[in-house]
Amino acid sequence: MKRFFTLVAASLAITASLQAQELANFSFGRGARPVISPEIQNDSVTFRLKADYATVVKLSGSWMPNPYGGTIDMVRGENNVWEVKIPLPEPEIYTYNFVVDGVAVNDPQNVLVQRDGTRYLPMLMVPGARTENYGEATKHGTVSHPWYDSKVLGFARRLTVYTPYGYEANPKKKYPVLYLLHGAGGDEEAWISMGRAAQILDNLIEKGLAEPMIVVMPNGNANQQAARTLNIPEKPMQWDRNAMQNMSERERNSYVVSLCEEIVPFIEKNFRAIAKPEARAIAGLSMGGGHTITASNMYPAMFDYICPLSAAGSATPEQVATLKKAGVKLYFLACGNTDFLFQGSQTLDKTLTEQGLKHEFFVSEGGHTWANWRLYLNTFAPKLFK
Amino acid sequence: MKRFFTLVAASLAITASLQAQELANFSFGRGARPVISPEIQNDSVTFRLKADYATVVKLSGSWMPNPYGGTIDMVRGENNVWEVKIPLPEPEIYTYNFVVDGVAVNDPQNVLVQRDGTRYLPMLMVPGARTENYGEATKHGTVSHPWYDSKVLGFARRLTVYTPYGYEANPKKKYPVLYLLHGAGGDEEAWISMGRAAQILDNLIEKGLAEPMIVVMPNGNANQQAARTLNIPEKPMQWDRNAMQNMSERERNSYVVSLCEEIVPFIEKNFRAIAKPEARAIAGLSMGGGHTITASNMYPAMFDYICPLSAAGSATPEQVATLKKAGVKLYFLACGNTDFLFQGSQTLDKTLTEQGLKHEFFVSEGGHTWANWRLYLNTFAPKLFK
Repeated sequence: MKRFFTLVAASLAITASLQAQELANFSFGRGARPVISPEIQNDSVTFRLKADYATVVKLSGSWMPNPYGGTIDMVRGENNVWEVKIPLPEPEIYTYNFVVDGVAVNDPQNVLVQRDGTRYLPMLMVPGARTENYGEATKHGTVSHPWYDSKVLGFARRLTVYTPYGYEANPKKKYPVLYLLHGAGGDEEAWISMGRAAQILDNLIEKGLAEPMIVVMPNGNANQQAARTLNIPEKPMQWDRNAMQNMSERERNSYVVSLCEEIVPFIEKNFRAIAKPEARAIAGLSMGGGHTITASNMYPAMFDYICPLSAAGSATPEQVATLKKAGVKLYFLACGNTDFLFQGSQTLDKTLTEQGLKHEFFVSEGGHTWANWRLYLNTFAPKLFK
Repeated sequence: MKRFFTLVAASLAITASLQAQELANFSFGRGARPVISPEIQNDSVTFRLKADYATVVKLSGSWMPNPYGGTIDMVRGENNVWEVKIPLPEPEIYTYNFVVDGVAVNDPQNVLVQRDGTRYLPMLMVPGARTENYGEATKHGTVSHPWYDSKVLGFARRLTVYTPYGYEANPKKKYPVLYLLHGAGGDEEAWISMGRAAQILDNLIEKGLAEPMIVVMPNGNANQQAARTLNIPEKPMQWDRNAMQNMSERERNSYVVSLCEEIVPFIEKNFRAIAKPEARAIAGLSMGGGHTITASNMYPAMFDYICPLSAAGSATPEQVATLKKAGVKLYFLACGNTDFLFQGSQTLDKTLTEQGLKHEFFVSEGGHTWANWRLYLNTFAPKLFK
């Protein structure tokens, strides 16, 4: 048996070494001290990149005042490891990348990567009160990816579904459902990856702050089957302005129709969901905030909890009056005070007030960012189904 | 309503444009023609990267004879878009990256990315007979990530579970289970991402070539809770040679003990699995092939289908005799003819033959690669549970 073990151990060492070299993905030599990046020490964080032949290496991060163009120079050190040490930003989850001679480069030392639509971004989490629900809880819900057949949209489509810890162990228990919608550029993985939705729900439920609930995160792009498949989208984009002007309300809002007439029934059939308005919540960011408002306009009796976040959408006084009549347990409207859509949220707040629909207008610092959307989820989830 | 639509459309356009710029991740200017990469045309494929200030840009790909060091030079063209056009490699899934002034860079135009342990690699699929089961089928199974509590290893651990199309719609039906294990450097996402296991099973089942089955893909690193979490591994690596010499067989093989005594019961309790040896298969690559052999040595009566792939492991004549006595319906041993572990598979083949254990020794071209492991899964899955 000892001989067997030795063979396995030796083979594994070879395997690990071989796999690490596949594709020559890293330029440091064998035996060199591994580069550590990012490295948080007390109140600073250091980023490092081995780049033997680069002329200029910079760092760009979402904590910078101007993340759309601002960068910090990195300095070449021993063994051509470029380095920069900066004061630790405020507690939050950030993304960053290096810029090597003008080209964006991910951090090969950082296994934590967030996916935002077509982009993969190294992630930096600065611990603190703001982020305490963004890390792993002790007890974990299950994230699954079932597909539903959409007659409305014409193909099978992939969903992301979170079921809370204990779902499998309590086969008689039924749960309320939050439908959580992403923005333009995102897909059914956006809330899980960028939004840390599973971690936020795990933590809130473990602390007894939120009710155990199912969270359904569909793909809001009506022309897509799923994120990251080899299939080519078969349909024109839903928001082609010219094509949409000749469409009926149902055609124009085909994704919202599919959500309310196909996804909700699919979930209530295949998961142990409570099939009542008081056990249904809908929330969405940006385009998904528009979908949230459209769903509440077109299906006013379906959801008792409505949370448009940094929303691209509006409702008429008549629509709000109809919604009020149908009954709303929580209307949570949220937006950043420098968001380019802030005025739209202010207008909606005014209409809701004028129509006497009781609501909360949660205004945060900052703009149209995932930092805000995680904060909103962490804020409104404890208010649901109570 | 038209005003509402116009507002939404305009907001979405702004949102999409803003999101695309976040972090200045791409260096091409506004209004510039988007760069397309990779682009397959007839019998060639072209790779492109916008790099304004680079001195040398190269391409490295897993189809190259020497992917561990070989590269092809790219040529600077109009608008500083570097380009190289190469003959289309044989049908297969490949990974590649650019090397910009010595630093590995992912292709920002390619949304298809495979994750291999700590690395994210752009993916190129060349269509053909070899890859026909690697794309999306019409009907999709569900991929989920439940967590099981491991008393043996001391923490909750994340699994990947595939349930076949129809699982939800047939709530009385029970299914056989394949336990599919990854290699060193991988984790519970390896077979889904690099291995295309969901697509391979979807296609084989849709074509009637494989039995509908559940596939369970655990994390085989005994010191890890899960892939890509913010948690720090709390335990020393399982294959620390010095530490392991003082361990009992059960301690040394704690992951295999957890697999057979915790994961198998967890699956048979929480999924509609047939809890019999003739409905259990085990397969694994490299280190996971070692786990497969160890499981069949330690628990000879548990699995009737045993598939070590490019395996790092061995079995004694006594162990094979015990296994034969317990009953084996399929023993599928596979290895590449240039694999550095090929000799171990030849030795095991010899032992199996000498002990009269009926088996198949499937020898493929090539080495220790995902191209081979996808081929093996596509080859043995149709032989299971029949």
